[in-house]
Amino acid sequence: MSEITEMENGVCAAKGFRASGVHCGIRKNKEKKDLALIVSEKRAATAAVYTTNLVKGAPLIVTKNHLSDGYSSALICNSGNANTCNANGIEIAEGMCRLVEEHMGIPASDVLVASTGVIGQPLDLTPIASGMDALCADLSASGHSAAEAIMTTDTIAKEAAVSFTVGGKTCRLGGIAKGSGMIHPNMATMLVFLTTDCAIIPAMLQKALSEDVKTSFNMVSIDGDTSTNDMVTVMANGLADNEPITSEGEDFSVFCQALHMVTVKLCRMIAGDGEGATKLLSCKVSGAKDEKTAKTAAKSVICSSLFKAAMFGADANWGRVLCALGYSGADLDVNKIDVGFASKQGEITVCKAGAGVPFSEETAKQILLEKEIDVLIDLNDGDAYAEAWGCDLTYDYVKINGDYRT
Amino acid sequence: MSEITEMENGVCAAKGFRASGVHCGIRKNKEKKDLALIVSEKRAATAAVYTTNLVKGAPLIVTKNHLSDGYSSALICNSGNANTCNANGIEIAEGMCRLVEEHMGIPASDVLVASTGVIGQPLDLTPIASGMDALCADLSASGHSAAEAIMTTDTIAKEAAVSFTVGGKTCRLGGIAKGSGMIHPNMATMLVFLTTDCAIIPAMLQKALSEDVKTSFNMVSIDGDTSTNDMVTVMANGLADNEPITSEGEDFSVFCQALHMVTVKLCRMIAGDGEGATKLLSCKVSGAKDEKTAKTAAKSVICSSLFKAAMFGADANWGRVLCALGYSGADLDVNKIDVGFASKQGEITVCKAGAGVPFSEETAKQILLEKEIDVLIDLNDGDAYAEAWGCDLTYDYVKINGDYRT
Repeated sequence: MSEITEMENGVCAAKGFRASGVHCGIRKNKEKKDLALIVSEKRAATAAVYTTNLVKGAPLIVTKNHLSDGYSSALICNSGNANTCNANGIEIAEGMCRLVEEHMGIPASDVLVASTGVIGQPLDLTPIASGMDALCADLSASGHSAAEAIMTTDTIAKEAAVSFTVGGKTCRLGGIAKGSGMIHPNMATMLVFLTTDCAIIPAMLQKALSEDVKTSFNMVSIDGDTSTNDMVTVMANGLADNEPITSEGEDFSVFCQALHMVTVKLCRMIAGDGEGATKLLSCKVSGAKDEKTAKTAAKSVICSSLFKAAMFGADANWGRVLCALGYSGADLDVNKIDVGFASKQGEITVCKAGAGVPFSEETAKQILLEKEIDVLIDLNDGDAYAEAWGCDLTYDYVKINGDYRT
Repeated sequence: MSEITEMENGVCAAKGFRASGVHCGIRKNKEKKDLALIVSEKRAATAAVYTTNLVKGAPLIVTKNHLSDGYSSALICNSGNANTCNANGIEIAEGMCRLVEEHMGIPASDVLVASTGVIGQPLDLTPIASGMDALCADLSASGHSAAEAIMTTDTIAKEAAVSFTVGGKTCRLGGIAKGSGMIHPNMATMLVFLTTDCAIIPAMLQKALSEDVKTSFNMVSIDGDTSTNDMVTVMANGLADNEPITSEGEDFSVFCQALHMVTVKLCRMIAGDGEGATKLLSCKVSGAKDEKTAKTAAKSVICSSLFKAAMFGADANWGRVLCALGYSGADLDVNKIDVGFASKQGEITVCKAGAGVPFSEETAKQILLEKEIDVLIDLNDGDAYAEAWGCDLTYDYVKINGDYRT
């Protein structure tokens, strides 16, 4: 298997990509950047997946339209306003793309657009237009300011990148993400912008992305709410100069592995930085009869409010794990299930064959007081495995969402 | 249409039922009752519905078995321990029924049994056995102490009753319920014990109950978690002396209406007293193309953590209502949807045809600061209607569930 190496940097790890982020005035707080731009020096094969919510943000509709030929050159994204459920949403989203055309000379039809923030408040183009000069001037090969500019209630900027080899050429793939709240992706997800210099045709890029999200972003849940503006894009500009990937085979397989390393890293960052979260929870289900069963089981546990609140309290309340497995709809035999908890403090088994076993509450507490917790579930019913990521339910989640608009 | 009149009292409103509740020692806090008994002086036609969770509490299995002939004479229920996921659960549940036989002379096979509380901790029969004398001595036609004894994190005892006329005879139907947490019933629900003196055969009683829960308890959600011990039972001892109801027709229809009045009242009590709740939320969806669509839409809104947190903050964040409708899976046209909020302070429209309309934030705040809030959704796509009940998501929900076991 080809070696895949983690890199610093994110959305500009790949050759020929520059990015920027500034405060233009959509958000009142001048300390918070609210406008991001990603530009490829070469037109890039591009794939995307979108929310399955019937309410779709206007930017998604415009992006889908601009991507009908499978290529793009730039992406503009604002935070602070979702530009969704507004009568003039499409017009404004198109306007953002035209601003990129005017300032960068890239045809508007090659520009992708995304927005995140409050739903149902008209988005004004004025601050965006006045921020374009600064945005274009800020373009650099760091990309960190773009990662900052797409944050809403996120507390950390989320970046990840790897390098890998295809056809003897070194390729790079990286990206940025925003998560935090309204996170329960289905088919697509939150905002994730990926770039690579690997040469790959649009059809294979879309295939890789569509397959990847099934075991990456679609296995994350912060609060069970599927956003109206979820979108993952990946742009591949081919500047690594490898023989383009045009079909399945070893090169495609390496590309998919590299993609998965980056997406899973971003998933863990998104889950661990969920609104109000104090803990990253990874639910690892093994011994399932098939992958669908494993995924359904893992996701049900990670979505349970009761389980999430118990984790906030570092309470080894495994009955709630069994309860969530029982109502998940997954095909399983409750009398075979083992449950354990693990963290860097160690591992403890709390349930065997569907019934409690004696365990040290003190040891369990020590394990659960850590910031990264694994919930280990063995269904003892086959060989399939799945993992889902989430976070605990805390006072701060309620605080953040009890008065988000004001 | 026959008149149905609300009554004081609950599970003993119907002739020939007595009930009691005492503290026997399952719970450490001596102020909290933990054992309840309901007895019919005549063997009663009985129907029940149970949780669909694959993990089923031992008491449910024993109850189902004892109900195979469609009749029962008594019900015993403890709080403080769910007797679920324990190796000896069935034995203990049978033991509780035998204690009723020994003290009341009612065959154990005519006794129903229920438990609620923590999962996965063995339940000891000793305190129950020692509490039986007091429990039997406490039997009265009030039943209020039974309503208290089945409470866990509930803050109010839940009772409701009505009287109605069948075949010229006055009948009564009432019940008690416990809700609070792990409440997202599916087919069956939380613990609800109903009694009536109306004469009705078991098959028609089961038909009435199974139909009723679809628009009553199955439309309640506190936290999306379907319990392992949910159960609704209804005992009909026939002491009202009406011609027994043996088929559909006017009498059955009146009976179903009376049943629904009591169950909906209990639903609202359960939702308004959800764990940590400060508000009862009723989501009323009209203009749906069919009832299934209306129910799916209403339930999705009532289950949204983001919407629930917004209601806690009295924030008219209607974008979250549209978002929850969009991912609900219901077949609807987002561009037709109107949304409003109402309480005894008045009513306000915040969204027309899928887009925001200007409204006074001050008026909205006044409406949403009330304790009972209606969310009014018109899909403008047909004539079907549904209603779902829930509560807000608060700091106290997190507090209660962050450390439930200790």
